[in-house]
Amino acid sequence: MAVYTEVSDAELEAFLADYDIGAPESFKGIAEGVENTNYVLATTRGQYMVTLYEKRVDPRDLPFFLGLMDHLAERGINCPRPIHGRDGAALRTLAGKPAAITTFLHGMWPRRAAVRHCGPVGESLAGLHLAGRDFAMKRPNALSVAGWRPLFEGARKHIDKALDRELEAELDFFEADWPGALPAGVIHADLFNDNVFFLNDRLSGIIDFYFACNDLLAYDVAICLNAWCFEPDNAFNATKARALLQGYDRVRPLDAAERQALPTLARGSALRFMLTRLYDWVHTPAGALVKRKDPNEYLARLRFHRGVKSLADYGL
Amino acid sequence: MAVYTEVSDAELEAFLADYDIGAPESFKGIAEGVENTNYVLATTRGQYMVTLYEKRVDPRDLPFFLGLMDHLAERGINCPRPIHGRDGAALRTLAGKPAAITTFLHGMWPRRAAVRHCGPVGESLAGLHLAGRDFAMKRPNALSVAGWRPLFEGARKHIDKALDRELEAELDFFEADWPGALPAGVIHADLFNDNVFFLNDRLSGIIDFYFACNDLLAYDVAICLNAWCFEPDNAFNATKARALLQGYDRVRPLDAAERQALPTLARGSALRFMLTRLYDWVHTPAGALVKRKDPNEYLARLRFHRGVKSLADYGL
Repeated sequence: MAVYTEVSDAELEAFLADYDIGAPESFKGIAEGVENTNYVLATTRGQYMVTLYEKRVDPRDLPFFLGLMDHLAERGINCPRPIHGRDGAALRTLAGKPAAITTFLHGMWPRRAAVRHCGPVGESLAGLHLAGRDFAMKRPNALSVAGWRPLFEGARKHIDKALDRELEAELDFFEADWPGALPAGVIHADLFNDNVFFLNDRLSGIIDFYFACNDLLAYDVAICLNAWCFEPDNAFNATKARALLQGYDRVRPLDAAERQALPTLARGSALRFMLTRLYDWVHTPAGALVKRKDPNEYLARLRFHRGVKSLADYGL
Repeated sequence: MAVYTEVSDAELEAFLADYDIGAPESFKGIAEGVENTNYVLATTRGQYMVTLYEKRVDPRDLPFFLGLMDHLAERGINCPRPIHGRDGAALRTLAGKPAAITTFLHGMWPRRAAVRHCGPVGESLAGLHLAGRDFAMKRPNALSVAGWRPLFEGARKHIDKALDRELEAELDFFEADWPGALPAGVIHADLFNDNVFFLNDRLSGIIDFYFACNDLLAYDVAICLNAWCFEPDNAFNATKARALLQGYDRVRPLDAAERQALPTLARGSALRFMLTRLYDWVHTPAGALVKRKDPNEYLARLRFHRGVKSLADYGL
């Protein structure tokens, strides 16, 4: 993990005194999660997750994230539900960091995405979009088109000329032609396989809302195409994409304009992950605690989407 | 953590098929534990720990460790109890590594040792020594006197002349004068605060038997004096030591020869941890995943014990 905050006995005791969730019986730091420190807390009442927000999360965004989880959970979405303290507040401080307790979700994220996962992922994503419609708070997507060029500028001196030309042309294209007039709302924006839990092959929960924001709903679908429908060798799997898109359509049918925009949105989403990975790659020392993710995977995906002529290429 | 092995869905499924512990509902890698990879596994039947043994544990020692936990648990010691598969075996393979499932112990290790912990630690250590008396398997202590000089030789070119002289004199002393004719048996050999769980200020369990071996019982007491009775500034806390030794005596009274040998054993134990830390320090790249522990803490403790005249200095 990137950061890991130790919590002392006295700090934990003082923190839990503000809640009505029983006495602690176990408190174990978990190894998953790159952005924050997470502990599994067992109390006399049940199991919970305790998250300490580290520096990659802007504390000003936390009311949006926690409010969104409250909002979605109330509408039946299986996501971590913030536990509110005796004073009503869900966001508190632990070991000097902003921190919150949420419910514990059962299930396991599939280490390898399979076709059988993709339909439920599409359905749940659409369900999340519908449930988020009346969420009152707003958070712009800092990692949409306008955020891409600064990432590129921060990394370009480390890449070769051909790649520099290719990425610059992509940025020029998206800055001129990014789809605008499409249905928008709250999106998850990071629905990768490690954020989706399954139990007995049924989707049991969605976690990690710390990239959630307001953006085009179809852009979230495009992110899932990249996250779920490529094989380890970067080959596109149209069977997975068909299952994902059909699953989404069963709950919230994409309209004609969204369908037409999908290849562009998917290509843009590939560029977004390519650029954040590239930025992290060139700014992370090789020996650091962070496991660097290969940006080239997303370059291959970007090129695939650039060649897509119609939704038939996505299996529809 | 030093090593961390990812387990795929298919590997976990195949592994659990050999057990009769229900279907998995959650599987989370935990951040604690330097030597091995540990997962908390929740199934329809309850909670378990899954440990994958990494390269710092010699697979030939695993039958001793697992057999000892079985033996101690049968005698009422609160320690992880190996779960045996349908064929009776507790030691299996997961993701290409030797692996075992044990029961899950409730409780939390005290991030900061306090006087109130020390009595129960002494009592539990003595209870463990009594329960281990009839354990049939043997494992010599690779980190006793004979193992210290090779560690020193592997690190001495990195230390200054004064320290080199001091450590060499210590080794000469111990190699000539290490207490021999004292009660021996199975010792834990690593009973630090992160290996002892408390629940509501009662000791609820002892974990991590992967240094356990046959050695002098009083040497285990000496290890605990070093592990529990020094403050962060390396000042010795005689109140803690008195509580620890009185707790031990309530369950298994140290005999006169053991009492007399205690300062030497404590001094040797300090040297042992100083040398393993020194060795790791000089052989671990600064940017590595392992958190290096400061060897100087134990140099200070060694010097303290060298000055001890009688058990009165330990608060008795």
